Amino acid sequence: MPLLVMKFGGTSVADLDRIKNAAAKVQREVERGYDVIVIVSAMSGKTNELVGWVEQTSPLFDAREYDAVVSSGENVTAGLMALTLQEMGVPARSWQGWQVPINTTAAHSAARFVDIPRANIDQKFAEGFKVAVVAGFQGLGPDGRITTLGRGGSDTTAVAFAAAFAAERCDIYTDVDGVYTTDPRITSKARKLDKIAFEEMLELASLGAKVLQTRSVELAMRYKVRLRVLSSFEDTDENSGTLICDEEEIMESKVVNGVASSRDEAKITLVTVEDRPGISAAIFAPLAEAGVNVDMIVQNISEKDYEDHPGSVTDMTFSVPINQVERAKRAMEEAKASGHIAYDELVVDTEVAKVSVVGIGMRSHTGVAAKMFKALADENVNIKVISTSEIKISVLIDRKYMELAVQALHDAFGLEAA
Amino acid sequence: MPLLVMKFGGTSVADLDRIKNAAAKVQREVERGYDVIVIVSAMSGKTNELVGWVEQTSPLFDAREYDAVVSSGENVTAGLMALTLQEMGVPARSWQGWQVPINTTAAHSAARFVDIPRANIDQKFAEGFKVAVVAGFQGLGPDGRITTLGRGGSDTTAVAFAAAFAAERCDIYTDVDGVYTTDPRITSKARKLDKIAFEEMLELASLGAKVLQTRSVELAMRYKVRLRVLSSFEDTDENSGTLICDEEEIMESKVVNGVASSRDEAKITLVTVEDRPGISAAIFAPLAEAGVNVDMIVQNISEKDYEDHPGSVTDMTFSVPINQVERAKRAMEEAKASGHIAYDELVVDTEVAKVSVVGIGMRSHTGVAAKMFKALADENVNIKVISTSEIKISVLIDRKYMELAVQALHDAFGLEAA
Repeated sequence: MPLLVMKFGGTSVADLDRIKNAAAKVQREVERGYDVIVIVSAMSGKTNELVGWVEQTSPLFDAREYDAVVSSGENVTAGLMALTLQEMGVPARSWQGWQVPINTTAAHSAARFVDIPRANIDQKFAEGFKVAVVAGFQGLGPDGRITTLGRGGSDTTAVAFAAAFAAERCDIYTDVDGVYTTDPRITSKARKLDKIAFEEMLELASLGAKVLQTRSVELAMRYKVRLRVLSSFEDTDENSGTLICDEEEIMESKVVNGVASSRDEAKITLVTVEDRPGISAAIFAPLAEAGVNVDMIVQNISEKDYEDHPGSVTDMTFSVPINQVERAKRAMEEAKASGHIAYDELVVDTEVAKVSVVGIGMRSHTGVAAKMFKALADENVNIKVISTSEIKISVLIDRKYMELAVQALHDAFGLEAA
Repeated sequence: MPLLVMKFGGTSVADLDRIKNAAAKVQREVERGYDVIVIVSAMSGKTNELVGWVEQTSPLFDAREYDAVVSSGENVTAGLMALTLQEMGVPARSWQGWQVPINTTAAHSAARFVDIPRANIDQKFAEGFKVAVVAGFQGLGPDGRITTLGRGGSDTTAVAFAAAFAAERCDIYTDVDGVYTTDPRITSKARKLDKIAFEEMLELASLGAKVLQTRSVELAMRYKVRLRVLSSFEDTDENSGTLICDEEEIMESKVVNGVASSRDEAKITLVTVEDRPGISAAIFAPLAEAGVNVDMIVQNISEKDYEDHPGSVTDMTFSVPINQVERAKRAMEEAKASGHIAYDELVVDTEVAKVSVVGIGMRSHTGVAAKMFKALADENVNIKVISTSEIKISVLIDRKYMELAVQALHDAFGLEAA
């Protein structure tokens, strides 16, 4: 029997009517001949309520108790979804993480999958059940206690089940109808993509397109799980949404397939840093220890030649998430105070944004960077920092130009046309 | 290490402040040198919300899914209580039913305990944990799925743990400060009892004193678990509340210790029933099959001698819960239609109440019934039906006299004085 995994997020199961609506989508796939594993999130708002109670009770909470409390939201949805399907005449039952069991590492609140044995669920399918409704986001640790996977973990649960059960596809139902060439709120020219390669989705996910968690796309790529993002709130068929798949499945691809943008960036520059071997390590080790996620890094050999810096000096610029600026400053100031690094000044620019173009076609095409820089120059957008990967070029610019830059790049790479 | 079981009901853990208040009571017992097993209910209102969702989703719900959904409320409280205790510096962890495991029968939504192995929790006490916080009302069925014990099951969970762990006592914290000689809303002369025997409590519990579930008292009596009812909302010490214990622990007891009353009764009379061997079985078997809980039964040999009933005839009167009257009527009418029984008329009286006096002293004292009937006669209260047990006398009277009867009996048996 072919098998599908279908995952419904919090807004898709926010109340009993929406659960019914989601169940109807499951029923349709059963009628098409699939066995279905449904992964559900907590009803929207529930997880926040539970997390709030835990944090109010104990600011530095025991993560094992956090997991025990917070996982209950998904259990409620799983039971209600199973009951809804039964009402529709679809043989279904719910599964909590420990019942499957979904074996994870011991890292409470940030657990990772170890394995998902198929035997228990396969036996129920053999007995005539058509649907297994599994509580997402949770698992069973080696200590016999409930673990959770961290926020967005339900997407990852869905992909892990699709891999374990060799599902034909993993459908992620959410409140958007697919993956777009760029944020439709920035330009109405944004176009929904029918297909996108795992690598591209990974760049877009980590660049701030909030459709899917990076981790779930990574897992899908590793196990070649065909992933589809589509809307819970629209009539959908087998061609709806966006398929995220191996690039071999995508016949012809544009050089650039998406433009991503993020406001949550800040630029930090250490002015007049001694330029010596090991200086990068001396700067970035304390930042890593402080838990700062450094993204882009640029080192400029300074032309300055101050009397009090007779040796070679440089400016070091890097970007961090805007909510980590204070942590980064403190780490740098402590490193300076303890004599590990020396710099004249630390300059923070929080008025920046990151804009990126992404496309697997870049691997075989040259001139993408030049085209990008020209498009920005034509709009008089100044580039502050550049970083590149095999399939992505990112630039840091003044935040006020972000929308302008996205529109210009969307036009320049012809993304409006399919 | 001596061990206590402490149980907190829904209103006692209704919000984070109340959980903190309950945790302080647990901490005090730990400081006195006890290991403590805490049994918690769901935060008040939560179980009703979950039950409502299940019933709206599926009126004839799958009890296994009901249990999976509804049990989540207790899991949340257990985790929050453990976190609160940890914040107070008390080493504590939460336990869900399947983790202990609390093994029950397969009867979902109405499961009964099979056994509660001590090994897992004992090991944690040995490792230095002082408190095990256990989610009440739930267990693990032989099918590997979550079971629940039915409403009020958390009291029963508490008693079962007290029995399994040979606890010194099982303290039930609730929103009343003990067991009273009668309902304090009926007479201000009602007095809190310091001690009461299991058998008496059992009669009072089943007679409508809503302090404790009958089932939990039965279990306590069977395993000789000393049970104490006391208030969550007052400062309490080792003498607070009411101790429910073996009668041997009660030095001197009055003949009557309590007056119970219930409005939820109805009286049904079958007029002119053929009086033959087997007629009682013919009447009460269909009622039992229809799930009607018949309480009191009276059969009067009728003096009537109608021409069309040449044989011996009788009137049969019985009481049922008021919400089962329709079911009882239907069962009787069907039995009549199918020829199993014959009667002229079925008369329902829903304007009745049951008033009972209870006391283990009745076993060795005579004249209690006479004293009761005289007290009622003095107030011109007519008795419709009488039933007695070894330690209880119950009468059915007009509902409008219920409060008057309770007050008269409370006075007659001198219950105001300790």
